[in-house]
Formats: sequence, structure tokens, C-alpha cells
Amino acid sequence: MAKAASATDIFPHGDTDEPLLHGGDLDAARRRFPGAPEPFIDLSTGINPNSYPMPPLPAEAFARLPDRAATNRLAAIAATAYGAPSADHVVPAPGTQMLLPLVAGLIRPGRAAILSPTYNEHARCAALAGHSVTDVCDIGGLGDADLAIVTNPNNPDGRVTGRDILLATAAKLRPRGGVLVVDEAFMDTAPPGSSLAGDVTRNIIVLRSFGKFFGLAGIRLGFALLDRPPAKRLAAILGPWPVSGPALAIGAKALADAEWIERTRHDLAHDGQRLDAMLAQAGLEVVGGTALFRLARTQAAYPLFHHLGRAGILARIFPDHPDWLRFGVPGDGAAWRRLEISLGSARDNG
Amino acid sequence: MAKAASATDIFPHGDTDEPLLHGGDLDAARRRFPGAPEPFIDLSTGINPNSYPMPPLPAEAFARLPDRAATNRLAAIAATAYGAPSADHVVPAPGTQMLLPLVAGLIRPGRAAILSPTYNEHARCAALAGHSVTDVCDIGGLGDADLAIVTNPNNPDGRVTGRDILLATAAKLRPRGGVLVVDEAFMDTAPPGSSLAGDVTRNIIVLRSFGKFFGLAGIRLGFALLDRPPAKRLAAILGPWPVSGPALAIGAKALADAEWIERTRHDLAHDGQRLDAMLAQAGLEVVGGTALFRLARTQAAYPLFHHLGRAGILARIFPDHPDWLRFGVPGDGAAWRRLEISLGSARDNG
Repeated sequence: MAKAASATDIFPHGDTDEPLLHGGDLDAARRRFPGAPEPFIDLSTGINPNSYPMPPLPAEAFARLPDRAATNRLAAIAATAYGAPSADHVVPAPGTQMLLPLVAGLIRPGRAAILSPTYNEHARCAALAGHSVTDVCDIGGLGDADLAIVTNPNNPDGRVTGRDILLATAAKLRPRGGVLVVDEAFMDTAPPGSSLAGDVTRNIIVLRSFGKFFGLAGIRLGFALLDRPPAKRLAAILGPWPVSGPALAIGAKALADAEWIERTRHDLAHDGQRLDAMLAQAGLEVVGGTALFRLARTQAAYPLFHHLGRAGILARIFPDHPDWLRFGVPGDGAAWRRLEISLGSARDNG
Repeated sequence: MAKAASATDIFPHGDTDEPLLHGGDLDAARRRFPGAPEPFIDLSTGINPNSYPMPPLPAEAFARLPDRAATNRLAAIAATAYGAPSADHVVPAPGTQMLLPLVAGLIRPGRAAILSPTYNEHARCAALAGHSVTDVCDIGGLGDADLAIVTNPNNPDGRVTGRDILLATAAKLRPRGGVLVVDEAFMDTAPPGSSLAGDVTRNIIVLRSFGKFFGLAGIRLGFALLDRPPAKRLAAILGPWPVSGPALAIGAKALADAEWIERTRHDLAHDGQRLDAMLAQAGLEVVGGTALFRLARTQAAYPLFHHLGRAGILARIFPDHPDWLRFGVPGDGAAWRRLEISLGSARDNG
């Protein structure tokens, strides 16, 4: 008699299935630092703490299936806001994270090369899509990949790769059918002209996050910008109702609010400089960042992480880079003061 | 010189990329029937028109990345509500629709057999995942598939396949490594004991929709119930923040509200009977349905669809079945009355 297959035999599984460490989990932070003063201040992400003001949401946004026209309208607004060639080149999704394996899956399994170190989900998700993944530390190492991935500006160090260099990389990939994916999750605060959003009619895919700059990560909204045929394929996978009613309503309003966007770019740039000064004052070496987070290097990263945690401030550590500590931007005067005091007492104790 | 590949050559594309016709698009209905009285009554879906009452949502639900613990908590509540073996067997997702190609993609490409006619996205999504798709009209035809799909109760005709028959089908599939997917989108109003939620430790995957029964389709929430290894794989694809903050908060409260669930099952059963009587009174043959929709058969399906449309009532037609007309449940007294009057005038004119 044939041995019956168990469900475990039937389904593939691998180490790409293991969850990775991420910032933003205050629940876990409260378990790790019991008794820390509240409110706990979350500086572990690059999410704007001063969210776009919530518009009133009609009950239908929650109750009804989103109309196709509303999804198309959001794509058109996003195309204008980001500078994509047209609404047909924009695919809205419930967050950029979910797009990573789906976009990697648009390219037939081959060699994925990732400009590293960077956001750790890119490697996991490319492997999940069947690619063999190589980390490269120089953009020249991307040239012979089937799938090349660059985060620009980079997370966590803020490194910016020039548009010309990226276009040249894409051109090098093109004859062999290679595709360049540029994760522009933190592009909203970068200098104008840095984005490749207008270049996606080539072998280039750009990913844009809504939640970070607008401070609304909970609604899950992100976009892939890509050429029409793969855009159609990606939209087919995501199906007819990819984005929730609340996210459609909020996203359409926020992405069209040029005044808020401009003011927030200005405010965040100021906050980033203020954070740099505060970290330097505390004796930390700031190695880079964007307006939404700054990366500090110090041998005391772990002790400082714990010192801040006990003071109710969650920074971001990196298991593979034990001398790194990343700080998001404090959201109000009280949070700035608590960070300053806590960094000061660490320096005085150190 | 080698011909440069265009982006169109690089990416695969196919006819599975074309969008299908769906209900629930009032925006399109208003364009189709200009001047129809408002409010337009949407009977084109199987979504409960009397939604679960919205709990107050904290600003953090929109602003912050959902905590992993909140996602796990929702999985545990859903496991209890649906009768899954454990929270580890439940994967929350932004709607069941998006799960269709991802779940089909858990099974290596082969022959997908779908008990038909049924929800048309199953065939499209199985093909999208690389399967060759066969429609079968008898459950006996599923036995040698790699992926067998049954919607239970079925949409649009309400056909219920017994649990014993489904378990026997799964047992037949198992020695060859085949998997049975049971789409239980409309199981919430079915008799207790009909669900396979407790049987997913075998080669069985169950899909459950949140938005239909709870009348909150806009928040995008659905679940896959499946064995631990494929559950882990599916969760790895969906990533660390698969469900929005608002959906997590609403879902956790609603799925634990046994009193509302019981009362709503009772009310919807009553509404389904009332709808049957009204359709019969109008001279239509009711061929089946669930408590959330009823399917009528009539040679006058298209004329009746247009007659209702001009009266501001959107029913559901099926291009492949021109004698079918499906009706969702009216939400209040005014909607019931308008449907009754409009059906009556169609009969009198017919």
C-alpha cells in the first residue's frame, strides 16, 4: 500500500518562512521593558509621528466593496503625486511590504542581487519568490542580475544613489532581460529629481510607501509603479479590491494635498537636523539617514538601547550590525525632551 | 548587435490578467442607469446590508504599524469563531480575494479542477498561479486533481456539499498529493456542522470571508485556515503587517460577539425566506441561494435587470448564464418596499 502523503510533505516550506525582526512593536517593547514610563515613545520606525489629519470617513467606506472607479482615481492621484507616466503605470496595494514577494515573482526565478546592507525583507521576499539571492555592497555588482534591488534613499543609512547611476544600471541589465526594482519608501523627503517614478516604462519598477511620510502606516497602503504589461499582471494578482475603503478615501485626499506635503517636507527636514544635533551632543556618531530617521554608530549601541528602553523610549537595533542604533523623529515637545534627558543621562553614566 | 528586450518581452502576461465582472459597483450602475432614483439600492452582492456596528477606532489604529500581537490575537479569535484547530492554523489577510492566487500558488502547478458553475475568480486565480484549469459539474470529477476547489455553500446557487463528501474527496486526493480548497465565504449562515474549518490538519484549506456576513466588505479582511507548514508559508508571503489596524480592531471585536452573530444568523434566515416569497410572488423561479442572496431563473433576466436598474435597484446578472438573476437582501423597510413595487410593476408590464 502506498504511503499516504502528509500535508507537510505536500506543501513546500523553507527558512524564508521565518519572521524577521522589525521596528514599531510597542507591545513587545512593553513586555521587554516592564515599568518603563508611559507613554512609551516609539522611535524604532521611520514613520512620521505627526500623521496626516484624518478626514471624516463615511460608513460606506467600511461597509461596501470599494468601487473600481475609486481605486482607479487613487491610482491617478498617486501617478500625479509621484510623477509616474500615467495611472495605468500605478498599482495600489495594501502596503508595500506585501508587494515585495509579488513584484519579485513578476520576474522569472534567477539571480537576485541586492545593494546591501538594506531593509532585510528584500532578501527574504526575493528568496520566497524563488530567486537565489546575493548581497552586493557596490552598485557595480548589480549589473548581471535577473532582479536587482536598490533601496533609495537607503534604509537604515540614508545612502542616496543618483538617478543617472540607477538608469545606467537598468540599461546594463536590460539586454539580458534583467529588471531593476527601486524601493523609494523614503523618497518623499529626498531632493526633487531623485525619484525614478517617471522612468518605469523601461525595465524599472519603483515602490512607494504611503504610510511612512503621511504617518498612517496602519491603513496599509503602498504602490508599485511599473510598465503597463507587468502592472496589469500585478493588478490581476491583487484582484479587484486591493485597497480598503478607508485607505482609498484617506490616500486620495492626502496625496492631492500639495500644501500639507510641502509643509511636512520642510518640518521633517528641520526635525532631522535637530535630531542630528541632539545625537551628536550625546557623543554619538551620526552616519546617515533620511528626514524620517537617523542612524548612529556607537560601540555602546546595546547598552544605550536598554537605557532608553527603561526610560520608555524604543530605538531600533540591528542584530547583524551591533554598533548601529537608529532613531525615528520624536513627535512632540515632550518626546524631544525625554529623548534629550535620556541621552544626556546615558552620556553622563557612560 | 543583440536586439534589446523591451519590458513587454521581459514580463509574462496572459488573459488571466483581464478583470472580471463583479457585483457591488454602484458607481458603474449610476453611469449605466442615469436618472434612477436615489438612494440606489445595491442587491448585486451577498454582503449583509446591516453592518456590524462600528466600534470607536483609536487614532493609533490608523497611524501605527499593527503590533504582531494584535494580528496573533485576531487569528486566535478567528480560530475560535470558525472552529479551526488553533491560531497557528489561521492566516489573516486583507480580504479572501487576494488569497485566491496565493493559496493556489502554495500547490505546485498542475491540474486545478473547480466544481462549477461558481465564483468566477477561482478559475482566473488558479490559472494565474500556473495551474491548468478544468471546470467540473460533479464532485466526482475532482478526484484526480492537484488542486480541487469547491465553494460551499456555492455562489450563486447556494448548493451545499456535505462535509462527509468533502472529506471523502480530500481523502481521494491525498495519496497523489492533491489538495482540496473549500471557499466558505457564505458559510456563516449555513447549518452548524457544515464547515471543514476543524479538518484543516489534512490536505484541506478553508477560506473564510469576514466582510460578507458582518457587512463590512470595505475593510478587507479574510482568513485562510490550513495546516501549520503551509500556514507559515502563506503568512511569510503576506508579511508582518497583512491586515490594517482598523480591520484588526473591528475583526477582533466582531468575531468574538457571539450574541450579534447569533441574532444576525436568525435575522438573515428570516430575510432570505421573505426574499424567496417576494421573488415567487413576482413569478420568478427561485433555484437556490444562501441567507445572504437568492438566485432566480427567468427568461426575462436581462429585461428585469434593466427594469430594476431604472428603478434604482441593482441586481446581479451573469454573462455566461443569461437566465440567472441574483438578489442580495434589502437592508431596510424602504428597500424592501421599493423592490416589491418594482418587481410588481415588471410582472404587470411583462
